[in-house]
Amino acid sequence: MKAIAVEPGAGTPTVIDTPRPEPEPGEALVRTLRVGVDGTDHEVIAGHHGDVPVGSDRLVLGHEAVGVVEDANGTDLEEGQYVVPTVRRPPNGTNAYFERGEPDMAPDGEYVERGIVGAHGFMAEYLTSPAEYLVPIPAELAPLGFLVEPISITEKALEHAVASRSAFDWELESALVLGNGSLGLLTLAMLETVLDVDRTYCLGRRDRPDPTIDLIENLGATYVDSRETPVPEIPDAYEPVDFVYEATGYAKHAVETVDALAPNGVGVLLGVPEPWTFEVDGGRLHRELVLHNKALVGTVNSHRGHFESAVDTLSQLPAWFTDDLVTGVYGLEDAAAAFDTADDVIKTAVEFERV
Amino acid sequence: MKAIAVEPGAGTPTVIDTPRPEPEPGEALVRTLRVGVDGTDHEVIAGHHGDVPVGSDRLVLGHEAVGVVEDANGTDLEEGQYVVPTVRRPPNGTNAYFERGEPDMAPDGEYVERGIVGAHGFMAEYLTSPAEYLVPIPAELAPLGFLVEPISITEKALEHAVASRSAFDWELESALVLGNGSLGLLTLAMLETVLDVDRTYCLGRRDRPDPTIDLIENLGATYVDSRETPVPEIPDAYEPVDFVYEATGYAKHAVETVDALAPNGVGVLLGVPEPWTFEVDGGRLHRELVLHNKALVGTVNSHRGHFESAVDTLSQLPAWFTDDLVTGVYGLEDAAAAFDTADDVIKTAVEFERV
Repeated sequence: MKAIAVEPGAGTPTVIDTPRPEPEPGEALVRTLRVGVDGTDHEVIAGHHGDVPVGSDRLVLGHEAVGVVEDANGTDLEEGQYVVPTVRRPPNGTNAYFERGEPDMAPDGEYVERGIVGAHGFMAEYLTSPAEYLVPIPAELAPLGFLVEPISITEKALEHAVASRSAFDWELESALVLGNGSLGLLTLAMLETVLDVDRTYCLGRRDRPDPTIDLIENLGATYVDSRETPVPEIPDAYEPVDFVYEATGYAKHAVETVDALAPNGVGVLLGVPEPWTFEVDGGRLHRELVLHNKALVGTVNSHRGHFESAVDTLSQLPAWFTDDLVTGVYGLEDAAAAFDTADDVIKTAVEFERV
Repeated sequence: MKAIAVEPGAGTPTVIDTPRPEPEPGEALVRTLRVGVDGTDHEVIAGHHGDVPVGSDRLVLGHEAVGVVEDANGTDLEEGQYVVPTVRRPPNGTNAYFERGEPDMAPDGEYVERGIVGAHGFMAEYLTSPAEYLVPIPAELAPLGFLVEPISITEKALEHAVASRSAFDWELESALVLGNGSLGLLTLAMLETVLDVDRTYCLGRRDRPDPTIDLIENLGATYVDSRETPVPEIPDAYEPVDFVYEATGYAKHAVETVDALAPNGVGVLLGVPEPWTFEVDGGRLHRELVLHNKALVGTVNSHRGHFESAVDTLSQLPAWFTDDLVTGVYGLEDAAAAFDTADDVIKTAVEFERV
C-alpha cells in the first residue's frame, strides 16, 4: 500500500510503498480516509521532534486521522463504522497509564506516539489499531474527522485549566490565543462558538489581507498583531485575560503569559520549543504569579475521553468556520501540497479515499 | 493600649500607645493573647512589602494572632471564646470576593490586609473584627493559635495544587519544600505527619549543627543543602518530586521548580521577591512544562475555610514538633527579641496576655 513517510535528515516527506498491515487479535483494520497535517508534522519533518520506530530508518507520518472499519476482526466495532484513532500506544505490553485510560499523562519511555515518536503514523491506505483506541464518529462528521485529534488536544488543555481553577469561583470571560495556526484557530472557534466566552483575542504577526485574520474576525474575536502589541502590553491595550492558550512554541510567550493574565487567571502551554536562553525579570514574574494567584499549566496529548468530547465539539463548530479553516484536501498524487506552509494555507489534509 | 508598630523607613518596630478600639455593630472586641512573627513581617519592616493605612503614618504589625473574645457585642460569638482572626478585609464596604467567602482571591484594590497592607494589624492588646472573620479555636490549642494563619496559607496552597492535578489520577508520594523558615518547616510537618507523604525533602543552606536541620530530620525528611545540591540537581541526587512548595522568595527557585518536578508534578509558589532580571533557558523550561504536563501555581493568603482546616491540622501536629518550632514567646517588654533573625530563631511570637 501507499504511505507518506519521512527519513531523518531528509527534510521532506515522500510517498512510499509498504506492506498492508494485518490486524492482531483485538485490533481492527481501518481504511484511511483523510489525515490532517499540523505543526507537529512539520517539527517531525524538520527533525526537531519525534523519532523513527525501533528498527526502522523512516517514519510513516500522520496522527490526525479518520477512517472506516474494513475488518472488525472480532472486536466490538462494526464494519463500515467511521473511526478516529487516538495517538499514544504502550511501548511494550501495557502500563498503569494506559490501564487507567490516561496515556496522555505517561512520561517518557512509557508511550510511543503514532506518526510522531517511535511508531508509524496513519498516513497510509490502511491502519491497524486495538479497538479501544478507535473512537467512533458519525458518518456526517467523517469528512472533518481529521480535526478530532487537534480538538482533543484543546479539550484536555481546557479540562486541566479549569481543574486548576476549581478551588474557587472562576469565570472564563476573556481569553487570548497565542498563535493563529490551525490549532490556535480551532481553539479560538471553540472558545467563541462552543464555550461562548465573552471576549476573545488571537495573536499573530500577519499583515492584512490575510485569511487567518479574516477567520479571527469572522468568529467575533479581536486580532492582535504581536509586532504592534507584544504580549505583555495586551492588558493595557485591551484587557488582562482570564485564560491564555499558548500555541506558538515561542518560549518567550510562555513567560509573557504571566503578564497577559488577569488576577486568578491560568495560562496553558502547548508549544514544544527548542532550548533558548534569554533574560527575564524572574523576580517580577514570580511575585506576579503569587500575589495574583496565577497559574501556568503545561499540557500534551489527550486521551480517549478528550477525543469523545472533541467529536461532540466538532459537531457544534459552524460549517462556515471549518470550510474556511480547511484550505486544502489533497490526494496522494498532490500530497506535497498538504505540507505547504504558505500564508494562505491554514489547515490541510491528505485524502487516501474519497469520503 | 500598647501596640507594636513600624514607621515606613524606620526599619525596626517600636512599642506605641494607641487608643483601644471600640467594636462597631457586627464586630467583637478581642483581647489579644499571642501574635506570631513571620517573613512577611520582616518584609514589611524592611519596606519591601505592604503599606500603612490611609491617613496613618505608621502600621501596627501582626497578622498571625490568637485572642479571646472580651465583648461579643451582640454577635454569635461567646465571651471567653478563643478565636483566630483572618487577615483580609474589604477596603470599602464589601465586594464580590468577600461576599462569596474568597477574599484570598481578591485582586489589588479589593482588599486590605491587617498588619500588612492598608490596615492595622493584631499586635496590640485589643483588636476588633467582624465576627465572620474570627475563627473559633479550642482552648487547648490557644497557646499555639498564632500558627493557624501560617498553616492556613499552606492549606490553601495544597488545595490549589491538588485541584490543578484533579483532572487525572495523581498521587503525592514525594515532596520538596524550598526553604527552612517557619512556614517551610510547618509545611514539611504537615506533609510528613498529617498528609503522610512517603518521601519529603527540605532545602536550606545551613551548616550543622542547626536547629532547623534537626527539625527536618526528626520529622523523617531529608535535608538538602542548596550549596551542595542546587534545586535543578535534586532529581539526579535524590529523585524528581511530585510536589514542590516554594517558600523562599528566591526568584530563581520559581524557575528551577520546573526542573525539580517529576512528570505531572505541580509546584506552588508562595514567595514575594523583588524584581530581579536573570538568564533562563526559557525554551527548555517551556518544553519541559508541556511534554511532562507540569504546572506552576501561585498562591497568596487564605480564606476562612482554610483557617478552619488549619485548626484541625494544628491539632494533629506532634507536640515535640511545635515545641521545637517555637523558639521564643516574648512579652511586650522583650518584644524586640521576637523580631530577631539569628540562625537559632525559628518561630517566635509576642505575648500580650498569658494564655
